[in-house]
Amino acid sequence: MSDDLLQQFRPSEVINWDDNTKKLILLGYINNQQSILILQKKPFEKQVQQLLFDNALQYFHNDIYTKYTFQQLNEIDCELISPANQVHIDKYSKSDQIIIEETYEMFLKQQIIQMPLDWVYNILEKKKEVENIVFENKNFLILKDYVFVNSKNLEDLHLLALPFQRDIKSLRDLNQDHLQMLEDIYNEGLRIINEEYKLDQKYVKVFVHYLPSFYHFHVHFTHSSQIGQSFRDIPLSSIIQNIKLKSNYYQIVALQYVTRVRINKF
Amino acid sequence: MSDDLLQQFRPSEVINWDDNTKKLILLGYINNQQSILILQKKPFEKQVQQLLFDNALQYFHNDIYTKYTFQQLNEIDCELISPANQVHIDKYSKSDQIIIEETYEMFLKQQIIQMPLDWVYNILEKKKEVENIVFENKNFLILKDYVFVNSKNLEDLHLLALPFQRDIKSLRDLNQDHLQMLEDIYNEGLRIINEEYKLDQKYVKVFVHYLPSFYHFHVHFTHSSQIGQSFRDIPLSSIIQNIKLKSNYYQIVALQYVTRVRINKF
Repeated sequence: MSDDLLQQFRPSEVINWDDNTKKLILLGYINNQQSILILQKKPFEKQVQQLLFDNALQYFHNDIYTKYTFQQLNEIDCELISPANQVHIDKYSKSDQIIIEETYEMFLKQQIIQMPLDWVYNILEKKKEVENIVFENKNFLILKDYVFVNSKNLEDLHLLALPFQRDIKSLRDLNQDHLQMLEDIYNEGLRIINEEYKLDQKYVKVFVHYLPSFYHFHVHFTHSSQIGQSFRDIPLSSIIQNIKLKSNYYQIVALQYVTRVRINKF
Repeated sequence: MSDDLLQQFRPSEVINWDDNTKKLILLGYINNQQSILILQKKPFEKQVQQLLFDNALQYFHNDIYTKYTFQQLNEIDCELISPANQVHIDKYSKSDQIIIEETYEMFLKQQIIQMPLDWVYNILEKKKEVENIVFENKNFLILKDYVFVNSKNLEDLHLLALPFQRDIKSLRDLNQDHLQMLEDIYNEGLRIINEEYKLDQKYVKVFVHYLPSFYHFHVHFTHSSQIGQSFRDIPLSSIIQNIKLKSNYYQIVALQYVTRVRINKF
């Protein structure tokens, strides 16, 4: 029985953590089988609650500022993967973010590890997710990203614009031939979001990822309150202006991007 | 006595929260004086520890995946500000991020709320923080940002490059006259970080904030593992290339930036 499983877990090493989101990932064993345990502290309930401060320990006081630590209200979310193979272990192990400055020459030389795009073509051919499409013209469609499909919360807003044209792999392929489409994506996307969700464009971030997570060009529309990714999120507005300035802008500039590499800190 | 203070706190409303970092900020009263209580869950200890799973509650099970919740290791960090005035309350209240597309015309028209720059001039005139300067030439100096001064952790790396020239307020003032200085800042900064901290440039993010937090032009050097800010972090490498492409690039393009506005959700 699964409850027993957890009781049998014997941790052997910390393979990952995130102090920012209060996460800890342990590798361990359950009867000689490698297993992964993912611990994450839960957010607070967003409500006024009378707290019990009896066990609060003061460690700082200056003028109006006082600091304490105490133990309370701290439910932890916990996921066990057992048995776990090396793929699981790699997936959950600490990785390092590094900055790559990619010249266009480097881009041309590199081997893109192409993930299959069948799921994208299924959408473009109306074989899947037809119910998630919110806009369409002859050049592109806009649909709800799966993370947003089941959400009632506007702050989770996430739409994707996908061109029907299949030979635009990423930002690196864009030039003035695509300018009209990019402007249409920008304007129609914001218009639809305003109509469908009554969300003013000042609450909408419109951007492209570089590196992208898949190599069929796409544009993200998200709520402005979402954290996003430094360096990786490139405003579509800048892309349009850069191409107007120089049609081959994205075939001449070096682009800095952040990528992850596996490390061992233990 | 301060411990009593906390015991007397009576919460009246939730004024802010962050589920991502597990934070909750309450407004309340201590003998009729408004007070603010900031609760934040602490990161896990990064060490293998035998956990007690007796009270773990299973809520999901599928194949090798099992999920539980339980209460343990639950230290909370807690800050009390009492009494708190409206400035404190505004500072800690929930704000909304909105996207502004700033044309150069908008930039020229706007009234910049200029914070005093005495602290910057004190650094440039060697009246303060002399011990934090790590590089200097005739055009600029590079010093440790105060957040990094007392840190032993390289992942907290944060250096600032400050030109001696006082009339460059922000990115918007840059043109080809500043190109040599910008390239020197980029190269000398990375060289110094490599010499002083043995950190390869692939672990260093070099960027400018737009909007900046203060209006004396400056460049940030941080560790690549730091989260950073989407749209606000602009790679110095892109800035240099854009100015080479068009000297007045930052006097013609519209820049999208994220800004915060106070909201009331309660």
